[in-house]
Amino acid sequence: MSSKPKQRPDTRELLLKAAIKEFSEKGFEKARISDIVASAGYSQRTFYIYFESKDAIFKELLTEWEKRLANKFDIEDEKDYKQNILNRWIQIIEFMAQDPEYSKAVYFKSPYFEETRQHIFEHLMGILIKEQSHGFLRTSVAVEILAESILSGIEGIAYRHVINKKETDIPKLAEQMVDIYIYGVGI
Amino acid sequence: MSSKPKQRPDTRELLLKAAIKEFSEKGFEKARISDIVASAGYSQRTFYIYFESKDAIFKELLTEWEKRLANKFDIEDEKDYKQNILNRWIQIIEFMAQDPEYSKAVYFKSPYFEETRQHIFEHLMGILIKEQSHGFLRTSVAVEILAESILSGIEGIAYRHVINKKETDIPKLAEQMVDIYIYGVGI
Repeated sequence: MSSKPKQRPDTRELLLKAAIKEFSEKGFEKARISDIVASAGYSQRTFYIYFESKDAIFKELLTEWEKRLANKFDIEDEKDYKQNILNRWIQIIEFMAQDPEYSKAVYFKSPYFEETRQHIFEHLMGILIKEQSHGFLRTSVAVEILAESILSGIEGIAYRHVINKKETDIPKLAEQMVDIYIYGVGI
Repeated sequence: MSSKPKQRPDTRELLLKAAIKEFSEKGFEKARISDIVASAGYSQRTFYIYFESKDAIFKELLTEWEKRLANKFDIEDEKDYKQNILNRWIQIIEFMAQDPEYSKAVYFKSPYFEETRQHIFEHLMGILIKEQSHGFLRTSVAVEILAESILSGIEGIAYRHVINKKETDIPKLAEQMVDIYIYGVGI
């Protein structure tokens, strides 16, 4: 049996929510536990019942975010390749958009950005290599460069168009990008 | 006639060089004039003969970088569209690679990143709109999305592959990217 005091089920959630707000507004370095607990209406003592440190609460948010994002990549319907990648892109951009503060805090403004991005990059590489071996991508396409380009493109669209400019027609944005990648820009 | 003391022609250059090093290592916020002058072998007094402030020396470096980059975008040879954009991409990535500390300092790690990026984005948009009107791009391509995607892609390749991973075959990297954009990935 745990020696920890009984936890009200929502305390933990409220602290996580307040942490997202604090991290997205101030960035990890300047974020303070005292401000997180103040905005959630708790004491510092309560914070330490649930989390060991500022780094620990951040890592918990990040791990959850990464897990949810990975699910969005794994959509599959190999019958229609274009529809398949379109669905994947819509899901990924919508995921980033649906809680923009969360994505800003643990990804775009995160001190672990390059590390997290590397995980996503490797996940995407795995998918693309499989797709190329299944004949959905030309064999002459350099998969590493494609992965870099797709990931950068999704980041750019998600961060600038959806999170910052609040464009809401994500299916259209995704379709425009996917169209360029599949057919190229040449006439 | 200027009331400023006679300037040794290289003092200014040496201070600018030392500033690039300081900004790229510590970032703008943590960079210190005292460390810039120490590494260049001058006194703070000398610094202020040439520059008004930390912000002023940074802005001077940034303005020069933006001007040089803009020149790389303006390469033109409309006879062969693929060769034309390939040359442009090679020039841009080589420019960022040839002095990686400089590009890191005033662009990738800059506090003015989004502002500078917006200038580059608008410049690129102008070029693409012209290319589309000249029939080099399919009319169905969403130019704003293409610009976002190209700029993100060039940043990703330049920053991760060339600046960080020190890959040196830039023409090959550029060719692989341009191939994807022109022809698409579909088989």
